[in-house]
Order: sequence, then structure tokens, then C-alpha cells
Amino acid sequence: MPANNYKKDSIIIASSQLHHFIRNIFLRNGLSEEHAETAAYALVKANLRGVDSHGVARVPMYCERLRLGVANPQPQITVSRVASAVALVDGDDGLGLIVGKKGMAEAIHIAHEFGIGLVGVKHSGHYGMAALYILQAIEADCVGFAFTNASPALPVWGGRDQFLGTNPFAAGAPTDDIPPFVVDMACSVIARGKLKFAAQRGEPIPEGLALDKNGRPTTDGKEAFEGVVLPFGGVKGTALSMLMEVLSGVLTGAAFGGEVRNPFTDLEGPQGTGHFFLALKADLFRSFDEFKQRMQTLTKRVKAQTLAEGFEEIQIPGEPEQRTEIARLKNGIPLTLDVVETLKSEAELAGLSFPTL
Amino acid sequence: MPANNYKKDSIIIASSQLHHFIRNIFLRNGLSEEHAETAAYALVKANLRGVDSHGVARVPMYCERLRLGVANPQPQITVSRVASAVALVDGDDGLGLIVGKKGMAEAIHIAHEFGIGLVGVKHSGHYGMAALYILQAIEADCVGFAFTNASPALPVWGGRDQFLGTNPFAAGAPTDDIPPFVVDMACSVIARGKLKFAAQRGEPIPEGLALDKNGRPTTDGKEAFEGVVLPFGGVKGTALSMLMEVLSGVLTGAAFGGEVRNPFTDLEGPQGTGHFFLALKADLFRSFDEFKQRMQTLTKRVKAQTLAEGFEEIQIPGEPEQRTEIARLKNGIPLTLDVVETLKSEAELAGLSFPTL
Repeated sequence: MPANNYKKDSIIIASSQLHHFIRNIFLRNGLSEEHAETAAYALVKANLRGVDSHGVARVPMYCERLRLGVANPQPQITVSRVASAVALVDGDDGLGLIVGKKGMAEAIHIAHEFGIGLVGVKHSGHYGMAALYILQAIEADCVGFAFTNASPALPVWGGRDQFLGTNPFAAGAPTDDIPPFVVDMACSVIARGKLKFAAQRGEPIPEGLALDKNGRPTTDGKEAFEGVVLPFGGVKGTALSMLMEVLSGVLTGAAFGGEVRNPFTDLEGPQGTGHFFLALKADLFRSFDEFKQRMQTLTKRVKAQTLAEGFEEIQIPGEPEQRTEIARLKNGIPLTLDVVETLKSEAELAGLSFPTL
Repeated sequence: MPANNYKKDSIIIASSQLHHFIRNIFLRNGLSEEHAETAAYALVKANLRGVDSHGVARVPMYCERLRLGVANPQPQITVSRVASAVALVDGDDGLGLIVGKKGMAEAIHIAHEFGIGLVGVKHSGHYGMAALYILQAIEADCVGFAFTNASPALPVWGGRDQFLGTNPFAAGAPTDDIPPFVVDMACSVIARGKLKFAAQRGEPIPEGLALDKNGRPTTDGKEAFEGVVLPFGGVKGTALSMLMEVLSGVLTGAAFGGEVRNPFTDLEGPQGTGHFFLALKADLFRSFDEFKQRMQTLTKRVKAQTLAEGFEEIQIPGEPEQRTEIARLKNGIPLTLDVVETLKSEAELAGLSFPTL
């Protein structure tokens, strides 16, 4: 999803400077050099791609969990091969950002031996922007899938209370000379932050986005924010979200069915999140060059389609995020002042200073 | 999707009688005993589950392709292991119903050896109701995925012409004492048949379902039917449909990017459809009994959710279809008179008679 640019009051910081700062915060919160690098990379990458909701704004959440001991700063992550081409990763309640990277790395490792590799993960936490793991697979010349469950946020089709996670569906494939093909989409029809914004402004919202707290469809921003966001595509989004729950939770042995703890509000214990990573070599049926050539042909045909009313261009999944990344690598990452304030507080707790700009 | 019950003029036929009749039609059109059984099973199973759009109403389409030689009645389907846990199935332009079954069977076979099995399929055709292959995996105690590409039907996000297939997304998992968990959903927001119905009645349709022939959003049933149906969930449905195209077409070496021929209207050559089948054992991380127990727990929690306004019950994906199947196994399958007429014509061409009821 593109950046929320509605807050005008922001500063600009170079991604390398931000990375260095976030890495140091994680180091001071007990992570190893390697894990602090991984966590900082994951969050700054989200900001670079314009997915600010999953970027450094989440540092205070991760650090609070580390300080309270409900996320393990020194996890002993174990990998067990449960079948020839399948491994179980036990994250030992480490940060999802770190456990997730290990999970996809193992799936890729297996894929290079067997053509395809599956990894189930348990005892993990919120793993950040799902596209991270797809890009990891793509860098290894693989097609990748990354599924996760999450704390209750969406009602089931016909229900009115939060039960299913927003459980992003993520998959992608390598390309050549064109943006990598990266699908990363929450099963919710709209980000909750957008309802909050409508509520604050007293604006109406379109039909079909939310239920009020009594389970009635609403177009009132405030009522919607007090109620629940609906899955995208109605019953279809529900089915996808439930599938992510089956694969990431039921299958792997992780928490499931409403048990995954909310990373922000439930500090009583580890989240118990589960993930499901799949990697397959892109050159299974054709050479890698042919695969990339075919991806380029598909992309060209897609982009050459006659435009519908109201559109100026057709982009492929992952292209808007890549454009943002190119721009932000060059021009820096905008951070809203409220995010800067929370990062300054984290810096103070860690005995560090927010970077001088 | 539930049955289209809007046509009142229909007959009722026992599923066994219908199966026998359809099997004989395929035999007379040159299929082997085994393949005729498979094709008849696939189509009657769709009718049993209420997916009448993918049932015996399609017999004339399949048979016309067989008679014209653009579908191969005697395909030499080959299976090549391209990596330890991955096979390529070349369908030799046989009916998708038959090639698809072979593809999922091979994925299951590999999964039982390596934990997970992937099969790419090329030189196939329309494979019918995608849930068929999910049920096949479930019967083998596997979690299954079945993806396919298809002839152009949906615009890309921002486009206005048919380009992507409706490319159903299908996946599922075995259960115990509850309906199997079966997700099978087209990437279109509504079936084109429903627009046709609205057009015939001159009824309006809700916003967001279709563009008119000039690429403008429309709520006029007739304009919509002359235009294009949109993907579900807007850009998200487009991304899913394009992913199916990447996996089933680009990756496998099948036709892709607008090349798959329309099974009804393009009789110039084989369809060239590609499929992507994935099977994984449900007992990879926990015992099979535990897996089923956890599925039951999830289902019970889903069904116990407080109802939203306008709902009387919460059902899980695949449950409505299973209910229809139980009812139709007992009471028979309704066939509309127009479908009966086309089947009678097929029977005549094959030197057979439509069954006496």
C-alpha cells in the first residue's frame, strides 16, 4: 500500500542513517549484532517501500515486548526437517522479523535441493511487511509465498466481532529489467488507520467497508472506527484470511483461532504467531532466462492494455512500492513528527540520541 | 457458489443416471473407459455441489472440441520429474478434467514421499470446477492448492478490456466430522451469467461490478453485460488473477498473457491452458488426528461468532456446497430445460438417448 502522506508535519532522514539508529536501539534492547541488523533492515525497508505502517513506527512496540520479556531478545531458533522437503522452525518467541527471515531462508535452501521447500514456523511474532520475505525469495531466484496469522482484527463472513487476523496474502516472482512481481495484501478491505482518519475528520466512508459496534453496516467514519473493518471481497476475503489461519496456525502447531496475542495491547505473554513459507525455483520448467523473458512479456502486455476511465497508467503488483523505494533511497525517508517523538523516547530509554539531521 | 435457481423450468435426474449418460456420451466421442468415467465424475460432481455453471451444461463444449480435434480424445499424458519434489505434466491437449486429475494425483504422490509435491501442467484445457482437485487432495489426507489460467475475461486494474482469466483460486484442507475446508473462488466479482440475467430483466446492478464497453463504471445491467466484469476486491483481485497466470502459465511453459483460447468461442486450436497443483501432507507438523482436531476447533470458534445484522448462520468455505451435495445425492440433480435440450442434441449426435426419467 502506498504511503500515508496526509500528515504534513514530517522530517526527512537518510535511510542509512535511520538504519544505523534503529540497529543501535535494537542492540541496546539486547539483540545480537546479526539480529539487530535484520530487524533494522526489515523496518527501514518497509519505510523505503512506502509501507510506513509496518516501518520504524513499530520500533516502540517491538522494544516494549523485548523489555517485558514477552519477546525473546536472544532466541535459540531451531530448524527441524520434518520431511525431505519440509522443515519446522521454532522461533523461541524471538521477533517475527528475525524468525521470519530464518524461515524463508530455510525454504529457499530446501528449494535449491528439492525444487520446492516448505517451512512452517511457530513461536514467532509479528513479522512486519510480508513483502520482505517475497523479496528474499526473489533475490534467490525463487518464486515465494509468505503467509502468517495475526491477532483478531476482522470478523468472519456473517460475524460482527474481531476474530480473524488481517493475515496478509503475499507471493511473488523474479523478473528482469522490470519491477519484481510482488503481491502483498491484507485481507481487510481498508486499513484501520484510514477509518481513524475519517473518524477524526467526521467524514463518511463508502459502503461495504465496516460494521458498527452493533454489527450493522455503516458509512459513518466514527461508527466504523468503533466497530470492525470488513474483509476485502466479502466472503472471498474471509475465505483467504481463514486459509492463512489454517496454513500458518492450524497446520504448523502455532497459536490459532483467536489465540495470537495483539502485539500492541496484549503484553501478558508471547504472541505465538505462526507462518507458512514456500519457495520454489523459478527455473523448474524453463530456464531462468526464459522465465524472466516470459514475465517481461506478460508485464508488457498488461501495461499495454487500453485504460479504463480515470486511469493514467497500469502498474503491476509491487511497482508502486518499488518506485517509492527508488525515490526514498535518493531523497530520504519522511517520518511524521509523532513517529519521531516516539523514536526519541525509545532512544532515551536506550541511552541513545535521535540522529542529528 | 450456490446454484442458479432462477429458472423454474427444470427436470430432476438421479446423479447415478446422469453420470452413466454423460460417461456414455464421452465414450462415443472417443474417450477411453477410464477417461470417460473421470470426465463424467467431474461434471456431475459440480452439479451435485450446486456449481451448475461448471457441470454437465458444459458437455456440448467439451464434445465439440473433441469432434473438431482441438481437444485430444486419446491424450498420451506424460509425467516428467523435473526436480526431486516437482513434476511437469504434459496434457497432450486432452480434456482439462482428465489432465487436471492426473496433475493433482502426481502432486499427492510426490507429497507422500517428500512431504510436499508440486506439479506444473501444460497443454491442458478448461479443468472444470477447481474444488474437484482440492477434494482429491483432501481424500488423500493432504492440504491442496489448485491454480489455473484461463481465456481472457477480466480487465487488469486500470484496464478496460478482457485480458486476465477468471482464474479461480482454490485451496483446502481435510477435516473430521465437519465439512471439508474448500476455498474455490473466481477472481471476478460476480459471475457473468448474473449480469446476463440483469440485462435480460433490465435490472440495475450494484456499483463496482462492471465497466461498460467504453471502460466506464456502470450500474446498468445491459451495459455491464456488453462490457467487462471487474475483478473482486479491485486491485487485490487483479493481483490474485495475475499471480495465477504467473504460476499456471509463465512458470509452467503453458500459454499465458491472453493466449489461452476461449473454450466456447475459439475452435481454431487447443486451448493451451496451464495448471499449478500443490499438495502437502496434513500431518507434517502434528499428527493427522491433531490436525483434524485443530481444524474442528477453528471451525467451532468461527461458527460460534456473534452474528452480524442480516445473517442467520455462519458457514465455513465449502459448507454450502457440501449441503447441496447431500441434498442432491438424495433428491436428484435439477437440470434446466435448456440444458436438457443441448444434452439431447449431444445424445443424438452420439447415437444415444437422453435417459428416461
